[in-house]
Amino acid sequence: MTRHSFLDDYSEGAHPDILEALLVTNMVQQTAYGDDIYSQEARGLIRQHMGDVDPDVWFVSSGTLANILIISAALRSHEAVIAPASGHIVVRETGAIEATGHKIITVPPVGGKLTPESIDAALKANAHFPHMAKPRLVYLSNATEVGTLYTKAELRAISRLCKERGLLLLLDGARLGAALSATRNDLTLKDIAELTDFFWIGGTKVGALLGEAIVISNQELREEFRFHIKQRGALLAKGRVLGLQFRELFREGLYFDLARHANDMAMRLSSKISNAGYRFVAETETNQLFPILPNTLIEKIKADFDFYVWEAHDESSSVVRLVTSWATEEAHVDAFAAKLEEFAS
Amino acid sequence: MTRHSFLDDYSEGAHPDILEALLVTNMVQQTAYGDDIYSQEARGLIRQHMGDVDPDVWFVSSGTLANILIISAALRSHEAVIAPASGHIVVRETGAIEATGHKIITVPPVGGKLTPESIDAALKANAHFPHMAKPRLVYLSNATEVGTLYTKAELRAISRLCKERGLLLLLDGARLGAALSATRNDLTLKDIAELTDFFWIGGTKVGALLGEAIVISNQELREEFRFHIKQRGALLAKGRVLGLQFRELFREGLYFDLARHANDMAMRLSSKISNAGYRFVAETETNQLFPILPNTLIEKIKADFDFYVWEAHDESSSVVRLVTSWATEEAHVDAFAAKLEEFAS
Amino acid sequence: MTRHSFLDDYSEGAHPDILEALLVTNMVQQTAYGDDIYSQEARGLIRQHMGDVDPDVWFVSSGTLANILIISAALRSHEAVIAPASGHIVVRETGAIEATGHKIITVPPVGGKLTPESIDAALKANAHFPHMAKPRLVYLSNATEVGTLYTKAELRAISRLCKERGLLLLLDGARLGAALSATRNDLTLKDIAELTDFFWIGGTKVGALLGEAIVISNQELREEFRFHIKQRGALLAKGRVLGLQFRELFREGLYFDLARHANDMAMRLSSKISNAGYRFVAETETNQLFPILPNTLIEKIKADFDFYVWEAHDESSSVVRLVTSWATEEAHVDAFAAKLEEFAS
Amino acid sequence: MTRHSFLDDYSEGAHPDILEALLVTNMVQQTAYGDDIYSQEARGLIRQHMGDVDPDVWFVSSGTLANILIISAALRSHEAVIAPASGHIVVRETGAIEATGHKIITVPPVGGKLTPESIDAALKANAHFPHMAKPRLVYLSNATEVGTLYTKAELRAISRLCKERGLLLLLDGARLGAALSATRNDLTLKDIAELTDFFWIGGTKVGALLGEAIVISNQELREEFRFHIKQRGALLAKGRVLGLQFRELFREGLYFDLARHANDMAMRLSSKISNAGYRFVAETETNQLFPILPNTLIEKIKADFDFYVWEAHDESSSVVRLVTSWATEEAHVDAFAAKLEEFAS
Repeated sequence: MTRHSFLDDYSEGAHPDILEALLVTNMVQQTAYGDDIYSQEARGLIRQHMGDVDPDVWFVSSGTLANILIISAALRSHEAVIAPASGHIVVRETGAIEATGHKIITVPPVGGKLTPESIDAALKANAHFPHMAKPRLVYLSNATEVGTLYTKAELRAISRLCKERGLLLLLDGARLGAALSATRNDLTLKDIAELTDFFWIGGTKVGALLGEAIVISNQELREEFRFHIKQRGALLAKGRVLGLQFRELFREGLYFDLARHANDMAMRLSSKISNAGYRFVAETETNQLFPILPNTLIEKIKADFDFYVWEAHDESSSVVRLVTSWATEEAHVDAFAAKLEEFAS
Repeated sequence: MTRHSFLDDYSEGAHPDILEALLVTNMVQQTAYGDDIYSQEARGLIRQHMGDVDPDVWFVSSGTLANILIISAALRSHEAVIAPASGHIVVRETGAIEATGHKIITVPPVGGKLTPESIDAALKANAHFPHMAKPRLVYLSNATEVGTLYTKAELRAISRLCKERGLLLLLDGARLGAALSATRNDLTLKDIAELTDFFWIGGTKVGALLGEAIVISNQELREEFRFHIKQRGALLAKGRVLGLQFRELFREGLYFDLARHANDMAMRLSSKISNAGYRFVAETETNQLFPILPNTLIEKIKADFDFYVWEAHDESSSVVRLVTSWATEEAHVDAFAAKLEEFAS
Repeated sequence: MTRHSFLDDYSEGAHPDILEALLVTNMVQQTAYGDDIYSQEARGLIRQHMGDVDPDVWFVSSGTLANILIISAALRSHEAVIAPASGHIVVRETGAIEATGHKIITVPPVGGKLTPESIDAALKANAHFPHMAKPRLVYLSNATEVGTLYTKAELRAISRLCKERGLLLLLDGARLGAALSATRNDLTLKDIAELTDFFWIGGTKVGALLGEAIVISNQELREEFRFHIKQRGALLAKGRVLGLQFRELFREGLYFDLARHANDMAMRLSSKISNAGYRFVAETETNQLFPILPNTLIEKIKADFDFYVWEAHDESSSVVRLVTSWATEEAHVDAFAAKLEEFAS
Repeated sequence: MTRHSFLDDYSEGAHPDILEALLVTNMVQQTAYGDDIYSQEARGLIRQHMGDVDPDVWFVSSGTLANILIISAALRSHEAVIAPASGHIVVRETGAIEATGHKIITVPPVGGKLTPESIDAALKANAHFPHMAKPRLVYLSNATEVGTLYTKAELRAISRLCKERGLLLLLDGARLGAALSATRNDLTLKDIAELTDFFWIGGTKVGALLGEAIVISNQELREEFRFHIKQRGALLAKGRVLGLQFRELFREGLYFDLARHANDMAMRLSSKISNAGYRFVAETETNQLFPILPNTLIEKIKADFDFYVWEAHDESSSVVRLVTSWATEEAHVDAFAAKLEEFAS
């Protein structure tokens, strides 16, 4: 078996069905800039999940672009974002939101998540107007950066607070597939469309070559959004490339199948690591695992597998991050597990 | 024969060789964010054309992103761009450059082009410092928005002026393939790398699904450019998708073959329109044609072909824009010509 | 007599009444950040001129700040400004508006002014959405940069067009005093408050040490404006300094008296230049004069007076700009005229 | 005795000498935009304190403008600021720095201050390039927002770290006068000019009507800084108003005299509060006092004095903030102390 990477869920290309669709439609001439038939079909398929919310749907090529677009389209220059200190826009997007002119007010995450209490505290601490930027948009991710989930009750409570306080709610769905396919999940796409003003459905991490679908429930943001897409460089001449992939992902549930597969592989791997006697710093809920392994074992596994050593745990062991994906095979999991057994014996 | 569109050069998907390469490499795990082997190979292939200029090469997903990135990375907030009034950043990018904080000083184009004289006039008219933004970067396109070309002498004269006056020079190469493959062209990629500080090679209009290659000769801009790519949302997790396409385009000259084919189809179409007795508002140099046709004829052709009616010429005739591409077939050209003959008889 | 400058209308300090008011109130403790009693009084005095429009009034320290604040508070990032190519924000503010992210669409001025026709043409030429920024705000100055005036009919026609097309209207009043005090003027502050969404009343050029009063009729902009004032660095701790000056200027009509005096001095100077046999490139309407003088005469006058040589008129004569102010004395005018007579003899 | 405010150090107008200078020079015509003779003299007087550092000096009308100008002129869009979480730019400037496009990385303050250790920790936590903005400028205030001081050793250690790591150092001197006049202070203006890249000397809080002097030691920032001043709306037509005030403040040491007076009044007040048996949450080092007073006493004092109740201390007492200034008289202090005695008896 060749070397395998558990570094992330975007190390391969696309699911074969997506490539096949690109091949089949390749020479059909289409209108440019997202007005092609495939993008229209994809929009329709996604909106079927939303019921009478009937949101607008747009496709862009990266998650950072999705966050930039939504936040900069939604806010005036004096308005700020509330986000968990661990949020992707806080620690992994090179100040992209600030580069559009907006302050991010960070709050300590609780299991990677925001709570009504933490949002309320941020509002209280940022109320010395006009000497402070006005909190106006709440940003959260599901699944979170540490792989945890929001329950329907949790998201509903945050949504209610936002409505009461005049705050817009944005859900970053880079790993939304993993969240919606998790065992403990009780949210649907329709719930999310109802509870947020805008969210986005990550395609890149669920089998697309590239592509994220932005879903806008908020009525005010709709009409002008396409200007922002163009202004930020996110309007692809061949928008068909994005639309077609989401058509494939949502035509017959491929999106959920692939996400579920990634989670299943994570559970399989989690069980095997548990059974080998190792603990985790967080329960495995989606496709990210954070086991604590002896450093000597880590060195041995690295001969055959790639993964991140997340942080030191104690003198002789470390937390590692393992990510499974739509492309992970049982054989990869089992080979990894075999290394643990080998080490034990 | 089905309806055919001469609206633009991005109505189809990708050249089949590119799709084939995506298929073949699909399940190979690669490092994310542009550090994959295909992107490295593509960089190497492109740099082979540049000789000892040995520039940096980066891949992004749209031309507007390329312009945003280069200009915002190169300039300080008080610095301005000089561009022809017809430039893409002026009239087709929704104020994207201004959105990054920079003023564009427009000058009247001469055949779609800048000249040392027009740049010099702009410098003179924008010298009341510090009450005026400081001109610092010259933007031009080759081929231009109206399909014309810069000769080596013209570009060299502009480059010399820029160096004398402390101006950076950016060449927008959305249709650089068409320019380099034109009969009258005497520029090479190496010339352009030497004469400009940065330019970009358009892939989207020369057979890629998406992708533009940014080439940076300027030493100062190099080290930090990747921060800008990430900050503007242009860093794709699966950077392999961009790199692989450019590897295919530059592996054995496919890029130039496809561009030449588009130009050849334009020449064939141009000849046939000329032979049918119609004139052009501009000589056909690349893959854009601007013939003057009777309005009654235009109506008839529209039954089978899509194209833009550019502007009224006189009471009974209009200028139309026809664009050929890598995907245009002789049969499409001939079918169009047949409509002219049919009308004549 | 000492050397005198006709360079501009801001070469001296403040009108003595203003300094006196600063002295008298100096040690009275006041609330900071514009909530002092003098600012409140000044607001009240200015609003008395506006009738039931009852606008919001804010004081800032420079005209560029006023333009930055109004435009950046009013617009979303994809929205653009329409302005005459000669507008102050176009040619004398170092790209300040673009630095806040907004494109300025310039139109050729007619006697320094916009017209409904020129605005309409700009709208037509900027309608290829979403590839073009959306025109959303019209900027004009009264008096204009070349000292000309808008009549009530002209401003009303522009205002009507703006309302029809969903455009906001901003009037830059750096020299509004000069305009309102001109012989030919038929506009009042109330008219302007009714016909525009926001305008500002220049204090710096009408006898204040510094200070411009922003007047906002538009309902939507009101509530949040103070955030923008603070965010752009325009909220002075001792806002009293601005408020008090406007209280003095509007307490008993000093503002209009000073502006009228400047215009009167301009008329006196204009007559004398005319009588001496020289022509003007534009009729003198406010406090700026543009006579054509022989170069040999210009050299002689320069021995005793400062002024700008605006542009060459022909081989032997030039247009000069002379600016009178609240501080210009008849003696200055007469001494200048004496130079003309001396030259003639 | 009338009601007195200890709310801040900017409740009065200007020191009488400053008003007198405005009066005396009022009708002298001066060149606009900061090129007047008074600004030149003020620059010279300030630079005399700096020895051979010989920095550039510019005058602007607010501290927020000073911070905006320095930071936005110094940084490229991908570069970030490191600041204490209590920093003025973090909590009292309405996101002004983010509005110019830059992320602020906050670190927990130690007594209101940064330390080499806290800066180093921020660097370590922000090194995942290019996914994180690049830390490039360190911001600190002296005196700090809680009235504490940097010693020469402390500032030198931070300066050394900055040089080693390629970081620019900015000192916000809104209350620099208070710091330099404190008993425990061992820093000079020359030290600060040598140890930082840029700092600013607050005038507004030390007896000016308005005005802050920006001092730039860094060679690279100098030439173009005036463009930024104009672009951000900070270039006053009557720059003389700022220059003249700093000329007065630095002509014969008035700046230091006024700051020392404020500190002396703070010490007098501090002693009296101590003697009355009350404690402080922080030692009084400059002109801000933070005593803990019984709530019943606070209510009584409020009948005659204004001040901020900073935070609850326990069920029956609170921390209050008292600020003295150049305008505070011994009588004000003694009257306040009398309330304490009255309460005690």
